[in-house]
Amino acid sequence: MEMTNKATWIWYPGDYEIWLGNQMNNRRTERGAFFPPFWKMDSHYVTVEFSKKLDLAEPEEIFIAAEGKYNVKLDGKLQFGMPERFQLPAGKHSLNIKIWNQATPPCLYIKGKTVNTDDSWKVTYEDKEWIDESGKASDTSATVYMDAACWNFNDPSQRPSLFRLNRVAQQSVGKKEEKDGMLYDFGKETFGYVVLENLSGCGRVNIYYGESPEEATDMEYCETLDHLQVEGSRVTDLSVNETSQITGNYTLGNSKAFRYVFVTKDAGVQLGDVSMQYEFLPVDYRGSFRCNDEELNRIWNIGAYTMHLTTREFFIDGIKRDRWVWSGDAIQSYLMNYYLFFNSECVKRTIWLLRGKDPVTSHSNTIMDYTFFWFMSIYDYYMYTGDKHFVSQVYPRMQTMMDYVLGRTNANGMVEGLTGDWVFVDWADGYLDKHGELSFEQVLFCKSLETMALCAGLAGNADDVKKYETLASNLRARLMPAFWNAAKKALVHNRFDGKQSENVTRYANMFAVFFGYLSDEQKEEIKHSVLLNDEVLKITTPYMRFYELEALCVMGEQTEVLKEMKAYWGGMLREGATSFWEKYNPEEKGTQHLTMYGRPYGKSLCHAWGASPIYLLGKYYLGVRPVKEGYQEFAVSPVLGGLEWMEGSVPTPNGDIHVYMDGSQIKIKATEGKGYLYIASQQLPQASAGNVEELGAGKYRLWIDTKDEVVVKYNV
Amino acid sequence: MEMTNKATWIWYPGDYEIWLGNQMNNRRTERGAFFPPFWKMDSHYVTVEFSKKLDLAEPEEIFIAAEGKYNVKLDGKLQFGMPERFQLPAGKHSLNIKIWNQATPPCLYIKGKTVNTDDSWKVTYEDKEWIDESGKASDTSATVYMDAACWNFNDPSQRPSLFRLNRVAQQSVGKKEEKDGMLYDFGKETFGYVVLENLSGCGRVNIYYGESPEEATDMEYCETLDHLQVEGSRVTDLSVNETSQITGNYTLGNSKAFRYVFVTKDAGVQLGDVSMQYEFLPVDYRGSFRCNDEELNRIWNIGAYTMHLTTREFFIDGIKRDRWVWSGDAIQSYLMNYYLFFNSECVKRTIWLLRGKDPVTSHSNTIMDYTFFWFMSIYDYYMYTGDKHFVSQVYPRMQTMMDYVLGRTNANGMVEGLTGDWVFVDWADGYLDKHGELSFEQVLFCKSLETMALCAGLAGNADDVKKYETLASNLRARLMPAFWNAAKKALVHNRFDGKQSENVTRYANMFAVFFGYLSDEQKEEIKHSVLLNDEVLKITTPYMRFYELEALCVMGEQTEVLKEMKAYWGGMLREGATSFWEKYNPEEKGTQHLTMYGRPYGKSLCHAWGASPIYLLGKYYLGVRPVKEGYQEFAVSPVLGGLEWMEGSVPTPNGDIHVYMDGSQIKIKATEGKGYLYIASQQLPQASAGNVEELGAGKYRLWIDTKDEVVVKYNV
Repeated sequence: MEMTNKATWIWYPGDYEIWLGNQMNNRRTERGAFFPPFWKMDSHYVTVEFSKKLDLAEPEEIFIAAEGKYNVKLDGKLQFGMPERFQLPAGKHSLNIKIWNQATPPCLYIKGKTVNTDDSWKVTYEDKEWIDESGKASDTSATVYMDAACWNFNDPSQRPSLFRLNRVAQQSVGKKEEKDGMLYDFGKETFGYVVLENLSGCGRVNIYYGESPEEATDMEYCETLDHLQVEGSRVTDLSVNETSQITGNYTLGNSKAFRYVFVTKDAGVQLGDVSMQYEFLPVDYRGSFRCNDEELNRIWNIGAYTMHLTTREFFIDGIKRDRWVWSGDAIQSYLMNYYLFFNSECVKRTIWLLRGKDPVTSHSNTIMDYTFFWFMSIYDYYMYTGDKHFVSQVYPRMQTMMDYVLGRTNANGMVEGLTGDWVFVDWADGYLDKHGELSFEQVLFCKSLETMALCAGLAGNADDVKKYETLASNLRARLMPAFWNAAKKALVHNRFDGKQSENVTRYANMFAVFFGYLSDEQKEEIKHSVLLNDEVLKITTPYMRFYELEALCVMGEQTEVLKEMKAYWGGMLREGATSFWEKYNPEEKGTQHLTMYGRPYGKSLCHAWGASPIYLLGKYYLGVRPVKEGYQEFAVSPVLGGLEWMEGSVPTPNGDIHVYMDGSQIKIKATEGKGYLYIASQQLPQASAGNVEELGAGKYRLWIDTKDEVVVKYNV
Repeated sequence: MEMTNKATWIWYPGDYEIWLGNQMNNRRTERGAFFPPFWKMDSHYVTVEFSKKLDLAEPEEIFIAAEGKYNVKLDGKLQFGMPERFQLPAGKHSLNIKIWNQATPPCLYIKGKTVNTDDSWKVTYEDKEWIDESGKASDTSATVYMDAACWNFNDPSQRPSLFRLNRVAQQSVGKKEEKDGMLYDFGKETFGYVVLENLSGCGRVNIYYGESPEEATDMEYCETLDHLQVEGSRVTDLSVNETSQITGNYTLGNSKAFRYVFVTKDAGVQLGDVSMQYEFLPVDYRGSFRCNDEELNRIWNIGAYTMHLTTREFFIDGIKRDRWVWSGDAIQSYLMNYYLFFNSECVKRTIWLLRGKDPVTSHSNTIMDYTFFWFMSIYDYYMYTGDKHFVSQVYPRMQTMMDYVLGRTNANGMVEGLTGDWVFVDWADGYLDKHGELSFEQVLFCKSLETMALCAGLAGNADDVKKYETLASNLRARLMPAFWNAAKKALVHNRFDGKQSENVTRYANMFAVFFGYLSDEQKEEIKHSVLLNDEVLKITTPYMRFYELEALCVMGEQTEVLKEMKAYWGGMLREGATSFWEKYNPEEKGTQHLTMYGRPYGKSLCHAWGASPIYLLGKYYLGVRPVKEGYQEFAVSPVLGGLEWMEGSVPTPNGDIHVYMDGSQIKIKATEGKGYLYIASQQLPQASAGNVEELGAGKYRLWIDTKDEVVVKYNV
């Protein structure tokens, strides 16, 4: 929520986000072909009305800028034309401005002495203002108003439709001749627009991109490429049939992901150096982590870079191939983001885009599990940011999304894959049965119903709280009878025709752990029968390793998880990774690591879900998490997990929490909120100061004063 | 349905129509202010996929043009770039083309030897094509395909987004100096772009439009105007802040309705003549009517011109003020159109636009009755054209519209005005109670449910046939108990808290007549207690006079109706009308006729619903109507109604039916279909030829051979 009172561009909530998302999602290409998403792409309301009730002490002139054709109504009276300056009289007045724009979202900017567009303005797509038989407008109460949305376009010239990410010129770090062309190395995974310097002559130029040198030099199979036709100063991009006039340097029109660029050209073409315009969203690196283990530090840094590359207009999956916004990927990006950039605007944009507009015609990205992650991400966002307003804005779309889900449940009130549903779960190196009732999907569904009840409460909808609490508790009561297998000491993978399968997978079990759906005894059983059991199908995506390692951390297995992180993410680093991958199987070798989807370079080597140590280290080692929304109250439970020392910062809405820990002391400094450190009795005598509260069973918590650093010394 | 096999531009059904409708509906201005509709304006699907299964005897090159960014997939394989020419191999293949376009609807044109875009192509907004764990696309069966839509854009350069109506230059018929300006008279109501000839100099030019000279010269209150700023060859339209460079003539950018144009200017401005570009949709005048009564001929001609002015991209209400597409107005335009232009494309466009997209958030144009007219118009269209394909295309949107209605019924299964509903009925010169259950709305609702059942059958949805038949018969059974008042011999106006009101109005009674909801006895009672009873609130809009006179015609009162037509429409002509009005109260005088909505020139003097004699004369005097869809079977029941002779043509989908009648004979010539003439026994001996069928009770029907003219002579 924009809290300033200066003027800013405003729009209908979600509309700019959906429009901008279409720009983003439609930039994917595959070997020179345009490759848009296959799910329904929504669009903005083409005509909306912004309004504000005024009470002015004195007359005031306002400046008006709009994206679209507009009119101005003062106290219901239409004014002539589309005035750029307009005189408001003193006193109480209604100001309404209606804008129509087919191509880009209708946006408004008004600047006056006291009257400025911001999120206190109202907006509607349907004013339900009509005329009764006596000729006067009546019953405008039927109009549904939303609070206008905004971001950071605070200048009239910063028209939202013109928004572009930042760019900066970068050079390659090396080049060498290969086959019939030149291979450029940009030193690490990167993203942007290739620049062909001093391009002239006549003939074809071909550009092949690679996250690996093998990919870049494989003209037949590299995933992305560009073909240009040069005729003097005229250069035609053959994939989009667009010709530009150049003087010297030619910059490609579409961005690409690469570390290597292989360029071939006809003899008649002259070409100087090949450089790039690196493209990025400006973000603050507010979270940090350092420790005595340099490999872990490197994992954190590469994770942060992976996150930065995939944190753009939206949180995208990976930069090379899809470049799309996927809900299951996004929820992990959000969680990492809370421990890194704390960029709430990007979270909100991504949530709006993923939901799109009514009617709901499919699951999020067509994937059943991704719908559930979408619900869950909203309450996560609320807990980290405290932004209740956003929850109430998006709540109506949560309702219609859940109506869609509830309309597809079976006689047991459970979800199973119907025609049109993609039951994803994970990319697994082994058979995953997708038939019948999957325990994984029911666990996510149950959590989603609980989320609906919580968000209904935040949106002030008491009826819905009751409705969703009932639905959630009914489903919750069915979970264990349906899926728990006492002999296997685990939730089985699925149930078909009312019969449990013999199959046990990790997915439902690990979610049940951190959703608190299991007894302590069951958790302990699962740890050994599933999570630490090599007989159970292994997870080879960082995507599900995220949850697997989180489950272990929740059960206090930080020492084990640290070893896993070093083995798995360290393994990628030893393979030369400069960003983390979509999938990593330590048993594979060499170019096997590049393949996926049956294509030799199908795998993305920069995938947001690869960066999960960012989240794990912040939440389960530094041990910082919000207990009440927006860190009004927070808990710190640092765990070294085998490290000698560690330190780092976790961002909060308006501050941060800095934690240092080694074998003899914990130091905490928080700049906002009210938090506590869980401590054990042996730490108690050394606690430097403050408010110690006994929790029983030898446990205490030490309340942290946000003014000063808290130091707790151990009895070593 | 486009039946040619030549190439034509195609799009997602309804999408181009909705987009074009936004252009149309957003052209309204009020005294120089942009005045868009207040209901939700929908938009096209921004990304759609067109597809076609091919089976080619030999390879074939196709030419591809698209509105938007596109890709080409052959047998699931993406092709490089956006090829303008593409080689298709022989044999069986799948061709898929996906297009993204935010600003205008994605449209496709393909021309080859045998492969051409037409309505045999499929299109979807959501291909539900995904990749299972083995990497192959699966379960595309979930995709909902529609048949692509088209119109008459048969050349690659005729991009649908560039469509414009035709224009032709016209001169004024007179001018005179008035006050400080010049008043131009264009001789009759017209529509188009004012042209300021040989404009130069410096200063302001003001243009005031009027359907009457009073309006044009009333600078304070005329409904539409334009202000220009001239600076040499630069002319700025001050209402839209748009500057153009001119050489000589300046043509206004927005069209206006007027007969009179009053122009004032600063002394520094030089201006030659003022002319116009008349703008129109090219239509065929396929229907005709002539008789011995010259006043009636004039009524028909002025009605036809009124219809032509309001038959544009869509059927609009009136040309001066709203210029919007309103459902209640449109259904009458459709019916008149079937007896005049038989322009089916304009009917289909208007039906798509009025419905818009899901979700349904209000009634059609926010008006409850207009929703019901929308349903009814679809079955009307089917009966006149036989176009079953259109019904099946639009049927899913009928379902969701009816779901909206059913979601707002009360415990009696009846509709009443809820918050957000505009219960319109009519503009009445007296109080119309809109509270509780209006008989008028229930009668329309019942007919709509019957329509749903019929259209469900046409769309092949047997479950829905049953569902809607049950709903319709349940409501039908409740109508008479709820509203018939035996003492008043009429349906009462409404019921509130289960209690009949004392009020009787014409609306429900006249609809119940031609919907066949009354016994013969009740009809006869209504005729005297309501329709011919001057005590009952009089109808003063041609809108409801349409149905009032239709009800009388259905009961054989053509002689009475002819008098009414001459009095009412003849009355407008005597007031100087050159097109028919939105409302006419014969008791008003002079400039009273110009006022409406509390504004001195608020009334539209060219309103489509003013043209109803076109329909009445074709259907109830020439007496031609389809009995089976698309005139496969038709009935002719000519009635002179006091005329000495009449003749005319009624268009059928691919031909026409010509009828001549005087006191001694009837002559009929039909060029398609199988029809019959109802004849009475006294005509029988003279019937010239053919197949006479006895119907009993002294009634016969004479089957008409479409090859020859049928002549039936009377015993005079």
